[in-house]
Amino acid sequence: LPVSLKLENLCVVLVATRNPLNIGAAARAMSNFGFQRLRVVNPYELAFREARSAVGAARLLADAEEYKSVADAVADCTLAVGTTAIGHRELQHPVRLLKDGADQIRKKLRSGRVALLFGSEKRGLSNEDLSHCHWLMHIPTSEAHLSMNLGQAVAVCLYELVRDKDTKAAPKPEKQEPATADQVERMTAALLDALRASGYVKPRSSTVTNEKVRRLVRRLHLSATDTDVLLGMIRQILWKLQSHKPM
Amino acid sequence: LPVSLKLENLCVVLVATRNPLNIGAAARAMSNFGFQRLRVVNPYELAFREARSAVGAARLLADAEEYKSVADAVADCTLAVGTTAIGHRELQHPVRLLKDGADQIRKKLRSGRVALLFGSEKRGLSNEDLSHCHWLMHIPTSEAHLSMNLGQAVAVCLYELVRDKDTKAAPKPEKQEPATADQVERMTAALLDALRASGYVKPRSSTVTNEKVRRLVRRLHLSATDTDVLLGMIRQILWKLQSHKPM
Repeated sequence: LPVSLKLENLCVVLVATRNPLNIGAAARAMSNFGFQRLRVVNPYELAFREARSAVGAARLLADAEEYKSVADAVADCTLAVGTTAIGHRELQHPVRLLKDGADQIRKKLRSGRVALLFGSEKRGLSNEDLSHCHWLMHIPTSEAHLSMNLGQAVAVCLYELVRDKDTKAAPKPEKQEPATADQVERMTAALLDALRASGYVKPRSSTVTNEKVRRLVRRLHLSATDTDVLLGMIRQILWKLQSHKPM
Repeated sequence: LPVSLKLENLCVVLVATRNPLNIGAAARAMSNFGFQRLRVVNPYELAFREARSAVGAARLLADAEEYKSVADAVADCTLAVGTTAIGHRELQHPVRLLKDGADQIRKKLRSGRVALLFGSEKRGLSNEDLSHCHWLMHIPTSEAHLSMNLGQAVAVCLYELVRDKDTKAAPKPEKQEPATADQVERMTAALLDALRASGYVKPRSSTVTNEKVRRLVRRLHLSATDTDVLLGMIRQILWKLQSHKPM
């Protein structure tokens, strides 16, 4: 049985964020993916709670908890994970790819709070910030352009955390009932009649053409419903072709 | 050996985007994840190329291709996928979860261009936009807050596309070359002409019928060759229907 994710145990911690629109965007992504607990450490803009980018997440943003230090912001968490754009600078920490790190985080969420830290837009997390982290997580961006927008990075990380959640609301593609050979053949016969009536099929070559048309129709992998609709179309066309035959 | 993803075959298509900052943010995410081809259809702000949010992706944004219609923007693509926040409105299309849809898209990218469409911030994609799509893809957001920020939605979709980049097994090549959207649309237009000439389509209901027919044709997953053959058949039928019109 899938264990329910304890999303309320995740704390998104934004450290020294410069642009309040990014805080709002982070709040929106949290709300989109079912997270609730936003923490900010020394935001550049004190009026960040008014950020208009928190569409649909104004309450979540209003409830954000403010801290003076990373130590305080992660104090009640059993795991602190820093995010980094850079996979290879002389990092003193283990670095996990997002999809692997997310597994670890999900496990920890069952039993306690987990802090997921995002640094400032310009500099990311400082070495001092990182020293509060158990390990680092890396979104696999292109070597040529590593640095993501903060709001987008938050959205991608949170998506990965809930990606394999057993969602009841998950829409499955509707399986369309396939057409039976009988239905397909009736439709093919009508099509051949129309092709003959239009002059597309020449009487001489008709066996070969019949086979070609039949194979073509079978490559379409028609559903039962679509076959009926097509049959209706072809019959109407055929009726019109025949009703206007020259005398 | 892992087969390289043909990221250059993906076209991110932004339809009727209102806020140019979102176009810039989409460009940045594309650059982060190694994609290059941005297309915009009727953007609200004509000066969108100056969007400052395209940090590190100014060139990609400058190279964005502009179109007047969705049909034109997807014309050279063999697959068009619409994104939707809503998993359950009376959608006429199959809907796949992002992680499942991404699999299909990766397969198609090997042999041709794929268009991934994002609608406007307020309304998403219209029914007319959707009628150009083969199926829809849904980011599994919370029931309580479905609607994502556009730039964040683009980032999440592109992340999922490259997420398993280095771990996928060798793919099988597709047997038949798929038809481009342009070919399919030409065939659809001819079919609609024939349906009108035959009286199957009533003028009153023509918008709805157009969309229905367009969706039906896209469910057929036509090859390039079969599309051409069908176009030839329909044109002959149409010629015959018109040449025998009563005076």
